[in-house]
Amino acid sequence: MGLTCISCGRRYTKSKGLYYCEACGSLLGTLVVDYEYAKMEVSRDMFSSTAPMYQFEKLLPVQNHSKVASAIGGTPLLFFEDCFGVDRLYVKNDGMNLSASFKDRASIIAVNMAIEEGYDTIFCASTGNAASSLALVSASSPLQTVIFVPSTIPSGKMAQLRAAGAEVNVVAGSYDDAFDQSLEEGFKNGWYCRNSAVNPYLLEGKKTAAYEILVQMNYQVPDYCLVSVGDGTVISSLIKGFEEFKRLGLVDRVPCVIGVQAEHASTLTKVFKRGEPYIPIREDVHSIADSISVGYPRDVIKACKFLARSGGDLVTVPDHEIKDAIVELATRTGIFAEPAGAAPLAGLKQLLDQGRIQKESAVVLVVTGNGLKDPGAIGGNS
Amino acid sequence: MGLTCISCGRRYTKSKGLYYCEACGSLLGTLVVDYEYAKMEVSRDMFSSTAPMYQFEKLLPVQNHSKVASAIGGTPLLFFEDCFGVDRLYVKNDGMNLSASFKDRASIIAVNMAIEEGYDTIFCASTGNAASSLALVSASSPLQTVIFVPSTIPSGKMAQLRAAGAEVNVVAGSYDDAFDQSLEEGFKNGWYCRNSAVNPYLLEGKKTAAYEILVQMNYQVPDYCLVSVGDGTVISSLIKGFEEFKRLGLVDRVPCVIGVQAEHASTLTKVFKRGEPYIPIREDVHSIADSISVGYPRDVIKACKFLARSGGDLVTVPDHEIKDAIVELATRTGIFAEPAGAAPLAGLKQLLDQGRIQKESAVVLVVTGNGLKDPGAIGGNS
Repeated sequence: MGLTCISCGRRYTKSKGLYYCEACGSLLGTLVVDYEYAKMEVSRDMFSSTAPMYQFEKLLPVQNHSKVASAIGGTPLLFFEDCFGVDRLYVKNDGMNLSASFKDRASIIAVNMAIEEGYDTIFCASTGNAASSLALVSASSPLQTVIFVPSTIPSGKMAQLRAAGAEVNVVAGSYDDAFDQSLEEGFKNGWYCRNSAVNPYLLEGKKTAAYEILVQMNYQVPDYCLVSVGDGTVISSLIKGFEEFKRLGLVDRVPCVIGVQAEHASTLTKVFKRGEPYIPIREDVHSIADSISVGYPRDVIKACKFLARSGGDLVTVPDHEIKDAIVELATRTGIFAEPAGAAPLAGLKQLLDQGRIQKESAVVLVVTGNGLKDPGAIGGNS
Repeated sequence: MGLTCISCGRRYTKSKGLYYCEACGSLLGTLVVDYEYAKMEVSRDMFSSTAPMYQFEKLLPVQNHSKVASAIGGTPLLFFEDCFGVDRLYVKNDGMNLSASFKDRASIIAVNMAIEEGYDTIFCASTGNAASSLALVSASSPLQTVIFVPSTIPSGKMAQLRAAGAEVNVVAGSYDDAFDQSLEEGFKNGWYCRNSAVNPYLLEGKKTAAYEILVQMNYQVPDYCLVSVGDGTVISSLIKGFEEFKRLGLVDRVPCVIGVQAEHASTLTKVFKRGEPYIPIREDVHSIADSISVGYPRDVIKACKFLARSGGDLVTVPDHEIKDAIVELATRTGIFAEPAGAAPLAGLKQLLDQGRIQKESAVVLVVTGNGLKDPGAIGGNS
């Protein structure tokens, strides 16, 4: 197992505390983990459609040391025939993880890495989901947990943090400010960094959602896979997961992965549309979808490169369509999603209207968080 | 498959609209479903520790017709060595169901029964969890859904209802009032009844949690299993599930099942302690644990009979201990529970203090709902 910089191509071996490419001199994540794929013995019958994510241990960068691994991943993929205008609709419900979000897939990798490398404290900055995920996933481990969140964090996520007993720093300002402050404090104190956009190993946890989709579809590859995008880490991870199963000979192609951003929080889309070289920008953003309200996306280079090479794309949707999508999704499928989790449905509807996705398609929507995290989004108390 | 009245012993065959024993003339649930156990071919290797609840279809009263069966049951059983004062602690996390509560196990049975028996509308009364569960589980079915809830329903549960598009009747008064009104309207209109305490088939869905615990423990029977109690349906279902696996020869004994009630909502405990004949009473109750704030428990006879014959018991805990238990549970295990879900831990601590449970025991705590349903319980917005 090694790491390669997606910008300059420099290669690294796994070593304690290595997060970013020294040659590129950046805290933006550009390192990508690779394996000796040719030597791996992996076959379709090794995997189960209901087992949790650590069934893929061979393809992960660290062994499991956690007590809660059986509660992470292995989330249901629900199938709906002729739904929302497509013949075959699948919904991957990652709101059914331990902390009720996709982020648990990254948190368990971080906790396992921190334990294996001998750290005593782990930290992260977060719009909310990564924070509550880390606090709950690490609660049963020997690690101390330090969290940095903006004051705009929704009630459900704050309640999770309060219950889990982590040290919580509420940063005056945006997620982007919380991110900067977390890196300053975390690295100064020598803590383990669970910021997905910086730590290359976390992508490895997140990619398991793509593996699970393929196993659950009995290795039929969907035409499209839609997911919400903030920093850009989740979309990179899904593309990497699909690509790896192709590389391992388990499937013969990868789906078109489409990222969905909020209209007024679409920084990554702007960078991607401008084309190479992908230069990060920083702007003020706002959206009902707190999880993807990111004005300075930290995984911009990786996300753009993965999207370009796999034929993926990015679209933006207005907040009112996201809000409508929460209700439509729950009403038709029974899945109650937080705003970012429902954004892919808003994106699907736009692409169908534009004729860019056809009715005959098999489409996967990835729901990244449970609506219970932010009941205020549809008009209740927030 | 047939039904037997646990009060008078009268037997019935399964028939449309049959909910209660006509001889006993009561709307309190006394009917219990039984199977021709001796003729059933069931073996340990038929079941998986990660598969959802419909893997037990042979032992359920109705086939699956739902699109969301893969998202119900199959919840993780987490293991913690030397935790909370016992050597082997297991936590069954039913907050990881589709609607984030145990109630989905009953809702899917009700939806499947209503579809099979040709109903077009299904109704229920609920403190909140059964309502949001039914609304989400039935959303993708052809059924119309009508809900009756008290105005005290917490924010998360109301948000789920609002998203799912069910018809919601907010009843001025308590859960007990909502229950009475639901039966009046529901039976008058000829709708299918998803009130667990009345409909005997719903216990069959709930009992699968006991099956799963035994499969996940590799058929080692725990010494104690603790669960919160309101109406009394959940505890009856767990005892029935354990008893059935014994009857089928899959295990050789049943655990001691202990129900935990809130100090000021302990009606069922009073009835049980008075002994036979178990006469239902009605009183004013209040507790932080909304899910078990039941002043007129509807499943009192079944619960008391199941408890008495299996050697189980009931204990009560004050609200402040439930509140503490939410934080202790999350801090040690990473599981964030709603108040009723954390009550079993408060019960365990009391029984350990009293020497009624020993350190050497294997103890299962059943967490029936996710803390995200009621973030206000630990001091956030409610």
